[in-house]
Amino acid sequence: MKALVYHGPGRKSFEDKPQPVIQQPTDAIVRITKTTICGTDLHILKGDVPEVTDGRILGHEGVGIIEETGASVANFKKGDHVLISCITSCGKCEYCRKGMYSHCEDGGWVLGHLIDGTQAEYVRIPHADTSLYRIPAGADEEALVMLSDILPTGYECGVLNGKVSPGSTIAIVGAGPIGLAALLTARFYSPAKIIMIDLDENRLQVALKFGATHTINSSKEPALGTLLEMTGNRGVDTAIEAVGIPSTFELCEAIISPGGCIANVGVHGKPATLHLQELWAKNITITTRLVDTVTTPLLLKTVMSEKLDPALLITHRFRLTDILQAYETFSHAEKEKSLKVILNND
Amino acid sequence: MKALVYHGPGRKSFEDKPQPVIQQPTDAIVRITKTTICGTDLHILKGDVPEVTDGRILGHEGVGIIEETGASVANFKKGDHVLISCITSCGKCEYCRKGMYSHCEDGGWVLGHLIDGTQAEYVRIPHADTSLYRIPAGADEEALVMLSDILPTGYECGVLNGKVSPGSTIAIVGAGPIGLAALLTARFYSPAKIIMIDLDENRLQVALKFGATHTINSSKEPALGTLLEMTGNRGVDTAIEAVGIPSTFELCEAIISPGGCIANVGVHGKPATLHLQELWAKNITITTRLVDTVTTPLLLKTVMSEKLDPALLITHRFRLTDILQAYETFSHAEKEKSLKVILNND
Repeated sequence: MKALVYHGPGRKSFEDKPQPVIQQPTDAIVRITKTTICGTDLHILKGDVPEVTDGRILGHEGVGIIEETGASVANFKKGDHVLISCITSCGKCEYCRKGMYSHCEDGGWVLGHLIDGTQAEYVRIPHADTSLYRIPAGADEEALVMLSDILPTGYECGVLNGKVSPGSTIAIVGAGPIGLAALLTARFYSPAKIIMIDLDENRLQVALKFGATHTINSSKEPALGTLLEMTGNRGVDTAIEAVGIPSTFELCEAIISPGGCIANVGVHGKPATLHLQELWAKNITITTRLVDTVTTPLLLKTVMSEKLDPALLITHRFRLTDILQAYETFSHAEKEKSLKVILNND
Repeated sequence: MKALVYHGPGRKSFEDKPQPVIQQPTDAIVRITKTTICGTDLHILKGDVPEVTDGRILGHEGVGIIEETGASVANFKKGDHVLISCITSCGKCEYCRKGMYSHCEDGGWVLGHLIDGTQAEYVRIPHADTSLYRIPAGADEEALVMLSDILPTGYECGVLNGKVSPGSTIAIVGAGPIGLAALLTARFYSPAKIIMIDLDENRLQVALKFGATHTINSSKEPALGTLLEMTGNRGVDTAIEAVGIPSTFELCEAIISPGGCIANVGVHGKPATLHLQELWAKNITITTRLVDTVTTPLLLKTVMSEKLDPALLITHRFRLTDILQAYETFSHAEKEKSLKVILNND
């Protein structure tokens, strides 16, 4: 089969790889029909995720058709149409039993990381019963690719951890696909103000279309001063960090109001400065989270009932065989005005 | 009247001051019967709290008898026996209405800070109806002095924010009065392990008497390595920071297990380094809080029903007129084996 293979920092190729086979009775083999590229894949290609080794097939998002199941798989059979979760969950360990699938003792984020991933014609999914979700009849397959990772990430790590609530004022720092996923799901809770902060004017315009009430282009105006002016010097109830660098995290520290929540979503490579001399008495909460995908069934219902349209995030479509071109488009987001790209293999 | 007066960094005296008078109809004047000294008073005397000005009477803890009430005070009358909260709450602003008295728009921590405090024969208490608590008949007055500040601080900022729960493993970094108050109230929730970390062996021995299950003397052994060994390399569910310096906060970052809570209680003067490159995917929560004293009525009930004995924290007693000597004893805690000191004015 064909697959997108990592060959060390800066090097990838679309090449022939052996088709995956069942290794454990809990495995399923899925024929990928649609997959996508994540910002995390670009981090891997920069060499930021050293545990990814030469020869690894990338990708942790996608939908497909079950090709084969291991002997103990009970929930799925050949031909079933499934959504792949970016998080593998054994369903049995202490962490899985309390809904913290991200820290599953025999899973977590492994696809396209510690085992071969979804940017291929076929993928092996461990613990298939608890790591795949049945796609309802009539669903828009493209939209559901967004439910593998970015929608639950924006929702769980940003919106739920940030305690977004009716009438509240929230800021989302970073209007990339994850920040926009947080915006789309924040709207479930009817906040009064959604302030979107980014350097890229195109992404801010998209955010306004998606329901942001205010935008701050931090390449043109000072984000802190502008935000304090917008909020009567009070700051925000929720600050969602969706970039992953010290300066954007520290901006969240500066804009949070007493009693507020800073919900970190960004993948960080460096420490930040925590201004405890100001924050110790401010009654704030800071959260971090690797997505658990525990809300995937809930998000599926919001898509099917048209409360959420994740397809809004898709800007480009390619055939899987054109994945190298898709990487170019995705990685030059400002120039290409790209958000999520869909790779078709049907 | 006599009062302990701050005269700039390093300078204090016990001197004559005018007796306070009613300034607002919501005020009460309380004759102090017992008060105490807080670690925060030592911070003020070091010059760490620059908004405290020359001439200020210190102290934000105490019990006493109502001497006089303003025209609109409804809940109290002359002769009532009352507990003074360290937090003044107007009861009417947005923050008070949601239980965040610490950020009251006409109060918060003002006693012995922005207005004259309790280390005196008399004190003026603004918003008396919502800032004083009636002392039940038969209560131990000394024990209740501990409910002005340190018990609600340890409980709200440490135990409640840290989500201490039955069967959990918790670490308290700092076995001073506040850390020990967190320990006493953590026991309400039956954690499996309470690991106390301090440099002072005497305080660790006290912690064991109070119900700690393990101690680490970080002057003699590496706290991180010892704790990881005690917890099977897993770390703790709750880490309560009760010191207020970067290194102890960063120790909490290192010992927290996936899904755990770091509850900051310490008063910080400097930023700490937040190791987001390790914590972003660890599903942790960090909280900060200036005590709201919203749990004072609850804590009063635990004292009256003998679920909590705050008098355990009292090691020394002085007459109010000997307050300078009491400051010496309190500030040389290791040498004097002192925790809280009681100052009597009855």
